[in-house]
This record gives sequence, structure tokens and C-alpha cells, in this order.
Amino acid sequence: VRLSDMGEFGLIHRFRSLFSPQHSRINLGIGDDAALIKPHEGWETVFTTDTLVESVHYDLSYTPYDALGWKALSINLSDVAAMGGLPICAVVSLGISDSWTSKAVDNFCQGLQACGHSFQCPIVGGDTVRVPRDSVITVTVMGEVESGQALRRTGAQPGDCLCVTGPLGNARAGLEMLTGHINIPAGDQAISHFLRPVPRIQESRKLVKHGGITSMIDISDGLSSEIHHICRESDVGCRVFADRIPVACSAERWIEAGKQMPIPFVLESGEEYELLYTIHSESYQKLEAEGSQGVSACYKIGDILEASEGIFLEKDGKQTPLNSKGWEHFH
Amino acid sequence: VRLSDMGEFGLIHRFRSLFSPQHSRINLGIGDDAALIKPHEGWETVFTTDTLVESVHYDLSYTPYDALGWKALSINLSDVAAMGGLPICAVVSLGISDSWTSKAVDNFCQGLQACGHSFQCPIVGGDTVRVPRDSVITVTVMGEVESGQALRRTGAQPGDCLCVTGPLGNARAGLEMLTGHINIPAGDQAISHFLRPVPRIQESRKLVKHGGITSMIDISDGLSSEIHHICRESDVGCRVFADRIPVACSAERWIEAGKQMPIPFVLESGEEYELLYTIHSESYQKLEAEGSQGVSACYKIGDILEASEGIFLEKDGKQTPLNSKGWEHFH
Repeated sequence: VRLSDMGEFGLIHRFRSLFSPQHSRINLGIGDDAALIKPHEGWETVFTTDTLVESVHYDLSYTPYDALGWKALSINLSDVAAMGGLPICAVVSLGISDSWTSKAVDNFCQGLQACGHSFQCPIVGGDTVRVPRDSVITVTVMGEVESGQALRRTGAQPGDCLCVTGPLGNARAGLEMLTGHINIPAGDQAISHFLRPVPRIQESRKLVKHGGITSMIDISDGLSSEIHHICRESDVGCRVFADRIPVACSAERWIEAGKQMPIPFVLESGEEYELLYTIHSESYQKLEAEGSQGVSACYKIGDILEASEGIFLEKDGKQTPLNSKGWEHFH
Repeated sequence: VRLSDMGEFGLIHRFRSLFSPQHSRINLGIGDDAALIKPHEGWETVFTTDTLVESVHYDLSYTPYDALGWKALSINLSDVAAMGGLPICAVVSLGISDSWTSKAVDNFCQGLQACGHSFQCPIVGGDTVRVPRDSVITVTVMGEVESGQALRRTGAQPGDCLCVTGPLGNARAGLEMLTGHINIPAGDQAISHFLRPVPRIQESRKLVKHGGITSMIDISDGLSSEIHHICRESDVGCRVFADRIPVACSAERWIEAGKQMPIPFVLESGEEYELLYTIHSESYQKLEAEGSQGVSACYKIGDILEASEGIFLEKDGKQTPLNSKGWEHFH
């Protein structure tokens, strides 16, 4: 069945039967002019939106529709995680051309719903529109965080430790594998990381509860770019220890196979969706002491300095300025 | 300045300086991973999204950029109004091609902001992406309504009165004038209604406070289509008095000039953004008795019947079935 035969109301009906949220916070889901959500005393509402455009952000020749649905929601959940929050619900705007079959729409919705189920974020509304060519997907997520506890980009202080929640490089290795049609042993892990990123909500919440986090951002444009974001917003400088940046195993294999330089590769790898954060040094020491019993998502990669000291990478005692590269959408 | 010279961060910086919300409910606006909003005890959150696609929903040859910004927000505020709610804030996803100059982006933002100012709905976040050709704009609005007071589509009961908040036909007359390049006296009003629709938030809130409203929907696809929505969702029938449907003055002039049939013209006119609602007959009588001192946005156009009686139009004592025409996006 082609989209044009299904009609908008057919599509809405399909969505409604797929997405009927059984969630204590949702008073009304899809089907009316808007969704209704119960408030939660003592919590602030988190509100974020992200758009994926075909042939700019994804390529349907190697992206399965269900992965696209997963990713469209997941990247928004990553923003909620980066605020230290929990998701409540999402709305989806799906702009698709007639080339999408109803099977494609179903697969997309299944990926969306799988992600929503995994992270307790039901789909409560949306809009379906026809676009002439390239599809465009916008997901908007409402979430919440304890009042006054949100992790912003502005709170880093000299003396804080700079950390990431997990090893990096998988997303870029996955993308290069998909586009280069080359494979390596255990490459599936990198590909899966690129196609179905896992938002670090659990890790973020553990860190919020642990305390001492002064700023946080998710790594969507690449580590170096996000470090620059935090430093600019917090008006601080930063020393990054090149050898402490954790590189994912399958990314390491890919880097070796392609004879690439591991550090630039990892610094510029976008769409990682690990979290980059700063933490008071005493809190970091407490975290480290707890070891694997505590928050496992803690890899220290640097120290926050005064703004006047600049932002640089240190390797074998040598310092080189760290540029804000990463992936700019309007390049 | 072309978009490609501005870069994404240039654009974000521009947005941030334009949209710095001074609003007691917004704890954090544009510039972090998500916005933060203060909760409001005793109110439910309203959540809605709507997308406009170039060459499907708008044509830049006759739509000024500021009108586009106004409309993108306004149609979402109309959905909040249709729930009986008040807006809190909005996020905007702007997918634009390199053909947009920075002046175009500025004008778009000014229209967006003018609408936000008019209806107390600050822009608190968003995403900017490059699209290969046709621009795509998704706005998502968060609003609120007193817990349990939302006006859904499901509550209409036989015996209720069917009403609209204002005269219809302006939007279609305005669109035909713009595309036909013909003008009539006072045509500006119709064109303005089409390009810069006014969400009926004030009217909706007055009706909520008056009480007795059993269902509500906004007229985006055309009156006949929305009547069918309410009847289907509430499982009722309806008698519509053809002569009681209020026709806007400039629409009337346009209809006369074009020798068109007024009732079909008005029944099928989409993008009106007046509200269609049902109200207990006693509450309606109370409204009527208050006259212009009370809620002025009350034009009774029909009666709700049992579902078995069907949905029909009555004129000069004759009944004809009312089809659900209106404007389907996937036609």
C-alpha cells in the first residue's frame, strides 16, 4: 500500500492503534487537538526538539526504517539525558514522500515505539505531512527533572574533572563501514551504535543522584566540538589528556584496519550520544572509589582550567591547541 | 548573507539573541540541550505539534517570511485553544535550504516572535537544519489547562448546540485572491486572515470559564470535515442549518464576484482556525441571554442528534447529507 492510497486519516488511525499509551502520566494521547499530561509537583519540565532530514542526516540506502524511527526519538532522549532528566512523552512530525510504502511507515513506527518502550517515553501525538522528495522527521520530547537539579552547560568551574560516560568512535566507525561497504570483525557493534544509539538516561540519572555534576552535554557533533561548547558556555579552559580518551573496541579495530589516527578520529566522531560532563574533583574521587559498584559511566579525560589557559590536548607532556571541529550542519 | 555563510552556530546565536524569553514560567530558554519550564499545580500539560511544508502548505511566491513565521506558531496555538488551554512556550524546527537569505530568516523569526508576543508563548528552543529543496517548519507547543477541564472531541451529546466562534470563508477567499491575483474591495481582510490567522485562545478561555462546553475542535481542514470529526469521535449525529453558517464579509464579496455557491465554499474552506464546539442547550441559552456582554464568539449553526439520525445540512426545510470533504493532506 502506497501512502497516497492510505490517506492522512488512514495514517492517523494506524498511529492511534499503534501508539495507545498505557502510562500513568498520560491523560490523553493521539487523536485530539493535543495530548494531555499530568503535572508532577516539585519537578521542572524539560522540552527539546530535533530534526532528521533525508540525504542530510540519514540515507535510506543503508538505514532500515525501524532504525530511523529508533534514532529520531533516541537523539531527543539524549538531550533529555544531557539535562539530567527523565522523559515523559514525545510527539512526532513525519514528513514523507509517496515513495514510502505502508510497510516502511509501519517499520518506522515500530522502531519509534521500541525506543519509546525502552525508555518509558510514549508517543502521544504528531502530524503527518506529505513532502515532495526528501523525508523530514521532527521529534519533540517532554521530560522532567527535579526543580533546580537540571545539568546545564554553564556550570563548569576550574578544578573540575572532565569526563565522558563511555568509549567513543563507534558511531563514526559504523558510518564508515556502512558507506564504505567494508566490514571488520565485531563491526556489527559499531554499526548498531550508529544506527540505534542508546540515550544515556540511566547513566545521567545515576550521576544526578550521585551529585557534584557541574555541567553536561551530549556528544552529537563530536567530542572536540562539545568540549568547546562547555568551555564557551561556562567561560573556562580545559586540558584534555589524549591518552585517556576511551576508544571503543570496534572503533579501534576499524582505525587499525584503515591506518587512521585514533585521536583525531575519535575527537571528530559525531552522533556518539555519550555524555560529556564536568564534576567536582571530590565528587569524582568518591565516584572512582566506588568503582564498578557505583556509576560505571565515568571516564575522566581532562581537567577544567581558567579560561585564560585555553583549551588544549596534552600527549606525552606536549600540548597542542584543541580546535572545535565536529560536524557543523551548515558546512 | 546566505545561510551557508552563517553556519549553524551563527544561526543559533541569532536565535538566542532574538528569543530571550522574559516569562515567569521559563527557567531556561534557547542555548542548552533543552528548555526548562516551571510546573503549575492543578493544571495538566497540553502538548501539540504541526508541520508546514513548502509547496504543499505554503508558497513563498505569495507568502511573506514574517507571515510564515506567524502562521507556523499560530496553527499550533489554535490546537491549544481547541483544547481549552493557554500556551506556555514553543520549540521550532526550521528546515531551510540555501536559498533563504539571512534577511529571510530574520523576517521569519520576527513573525514567529510577533505571534509569540501576542499570545504569551515564548520560543524556548529549536533545531535548525539544512534541507536540499523545499523548506519544512515544525512547531511544537506546550500549554496548560485546568486539570480535568480540557475540551476534547468526544463529549458531544444529543441535544447540545453546535456553534462556531466566528464567520467563515475568509481563509479560502484570501488564498484564492493570492493565487488568482485578483482583488476585491476589502480583500485585504481575507488575505490577512489567510496569511496571519489569529488563534482563538481568548474566545476558547471565555467559553471554558462560561462552562457547558462538551467538545471542541479547530477548523483547519474545513467546517464539514471538522463536523464529521466531532460526530465520529462523540458517536453522535448532527443537523446543520445552512442559513445559519456565518459567512465573513470579504468572503461574501469574493463569492459574489466569482459567482460561487456560498455554502459549499464555506463548508470546504480550510485553514480558518475558528473553533467549532458543542455546548449544553441551557448553557447556550445563558450565553445568548448575555449577548455582547458575554462571550461574543458564539454562532449557533446546528443541533447534535443521535448517531442514527446521521449528519445532514438543512435548508428551506430540505435535508441533504453532509459529506466530509475538507482538505486531506494526502489527496
